[in-house]
Amino acid sequence: MKKAPENSPSVRELGEQGLLKRLQRFCPPEWVGDDAAAIAMTPSANRSLVVTTDMLVDGVHFSDRTTSAEDVGWRAAAANLSDLAAMGATPLAITVSLGLPGDTLVSWVEGVYTGMVSCLDRYQTAIAGGDVCKSPVNVISITAFGWVPTNRTIRRQNGKPGDAIVVTGVHGAGRAGLELLLHPETGNDWSEAETRELISAHQRPNPRLDVLPMLWEVMGEGGEIAGMDSSDGLADAIVQIARESGVGAIVDRAVIPLPPSLSQRVGEERAIEWALYGGEDFELVLGLPWTVAREFVKRLGNGAAIVGTLTKSTRVCLTDSTGAYADEVITQSLGFQHF
Amino acid sequence: MKKAPENSPSVRELGEQGLLKRLQRFCPPEWVGDDAAAIAMTPSANRSLVVTTDMLVDGVHFSDRTTSAEDVGWRAAAANLSDLAAMGATPLAITVSLGLPGDTLVSWVEGVYTGMVSCLDRYQTAIAGGDVCKSPVNVISITAFGWVPTNRTIRRQNGKPGDAIVVTGVHGAGRAGLELLLHPETGNDWSEAETRELISAHQRPNPRLDVLPMLWEVMGEGGEIAGMDSSDGLADAIVQIARESGVGAIVDRAVIPLPPSLSQRVGEERAIEWALYGGEDFELVLGLPWTVAREFVKRLGNGAAIVGTLTKSTRVCLTDSTGAYADEVITQSLGFQHF
Repeated sequence: MKKAPENSPSVRELGEQGLLKRLQRFCPPEWVGDDAAAIAMTPSANRSLVVTTDMLVDGVHFSDRTTSAEDVGWRAAAANLSDLAAMGATPLAITVSLGLPGDTLVSWVEGVYTGMVSCLDRYQTAIAGGDVCKSPVNVISITAFGWVPTNRTIRRQNGKPGDAIVVTGVHGAGRAGLELLLHPETGNDWSEAETRELISAHQRPNPRLDVLPMLWEVMGEGGEIAGMDSSDGLADAIVQIARESGVGAIVDRAVIPLPPSLSQRVGEERAIEWALYGGEDFELVLGLPWTVAREFVKRLGNGAAIVGTLTKSTRVCLTDSTGAYADEVITQSLGFQHF
Repeated sequence: MKKAPENSPSVRELGEQGLLKRLQRFCPPEWVGDDAAAIAMTPSANRSLVVTTDMLVDGVHFSDRTTSAEDVGWRAAAANLSDLAAMGATPLAITVSLGLPGDTLVSWVEGVYTGMVSCLDRYQTAIAGGDVCKSPVNVISITAFGWVPTNRTIRRQNGKPGDAIVVTGVHGAGRAGLELLLHPETGNDWSEAETRELISAHQRPNPRLDVLPMLWEVMGEGGEIAGMDSSDGLADAIVQIARESGVGAIVDRAVIPLPPSLSQRVGEERAIEWALYGGEDFELVLGLPWTVAREFVKRLGNGAAIVGTLTKSTRVCLTDSTGAYADEVITQSLGFQHF
């Protein structure tokens, strides 16, 4: 990442003030130049402020092999906006802190910002400021904040036995895209369009902020919404919702929406494994009353599906309505663990 | 920092889920367990949301020699709250992201959180969530949120020629405390109380949120407030306010409030140098109309002073009303530079 072909100064050569000045171009001018950014608010009753934060470390969360600077920026912004979407919140702004070794190229830093802003622009969101500092390794810390009508707050703990489990799109695409980047030979006999779409799912994931207005419309005035995003995998999302709500779940592996032809390409078993445990899909996983769920899925089209039901048990059980696979219990221990 | 005497597991031994569970004890339970925290707001017209963020890196911003885990946490929280105070904002919450090597002791992480919460508790503020991830070096990233009545927003650019430059307390104490920690022999013939107070100024600085209600009362309905905090030094604060406001300043070195007896202990020249360039003092530096400034300083007492005036020039000039020192021009180039 540090050896970009273009002739860029390093951050040490540019200095802190020079770097900050360059990066300020990416921020709305009214938020620049103070100890903090002051964001004028339209007052409105019954709204909650929603905040989420994420840290990404070079060599742990991103690397040269799979991720350009622009993609690092896009993915970092998308992951945080997805956490807002997972709460039902509309984004307002993000802050960005960067820890940088002196020899990091300014072009890399600007690439990260360019990627972030490309993603944020789609959701009318901006960078409200940040910090740059010296560090032995590139570190990116993002905090995103947004608003949610308090009675529309999506929470993991809101699940009720009998709720339908809805996914807003296909799963496994992010993991498949990563595989194609790490092992390009995997895609030797795939069509270019297939390859491109899966790689794009990995490099440029879209937070599902777009589904919220539709969800509210379908919900009408009714009830609480359970849910989270599937950035750590579909299985993890369902287990977390079940655990936080004190319920169980039955999920039908036969109806989990996969990217077109993924099962043919890598085999059914592997495709489902990637969908359940691969992560990086940034879809929403919601617990909704069945009538709401059916209407919502119909309107969403395009990969959205009801994949199961929340139950009175406390086990999360993977069944197969085609009868090809035996039932399995899903536990969190297969999920992602750092350190 | 990693070799604490007590028998603590490392973060690798505890694992991510175990660590998160331990850290959740430090957060209000209603903000735990989702993709983000939803903070219920009291709606009110004409308020702005204020956000600020800071990254601290082991070996760059803190080290074993001068800073315990608790002090690292306190200082990190205080610096962010001070940035809110510098905007005139009342804090609401902070988020905390930690990048940690696997061998960092859990006791160190909990020490950092304990220090943060000790500081936050004084200002009725809490941790609204965060992230922990693997990193080759300990990294702490904090984002703080607060509210300001929009017409009370303190901004660097609000300075006007003729404004009095007010400091809310003594300067140089933070730097003197650091000196005593780095070179304890410096304090051999100082009183224990002196030493303790200066070290405490360095380890446990207090953000000046307490002065805001008094400031608003003295201001009445009147005008805009110019200012920032002096965490990068008094000179830097005055230069930044002058530059952003397109004005100059005259500062009288003879009236800059110093810690009692610091001049006798280290010499006048050095004491003033620490006050101007030492940083880490976390006082507010404000540009106010003279009548307001006089009343405000009188009410503050205890080290608060009018140290100069904003001028129509664009130079920041250090004079000496006792005549002992020649005039100097202060430029930002003496300020703190990373990388």
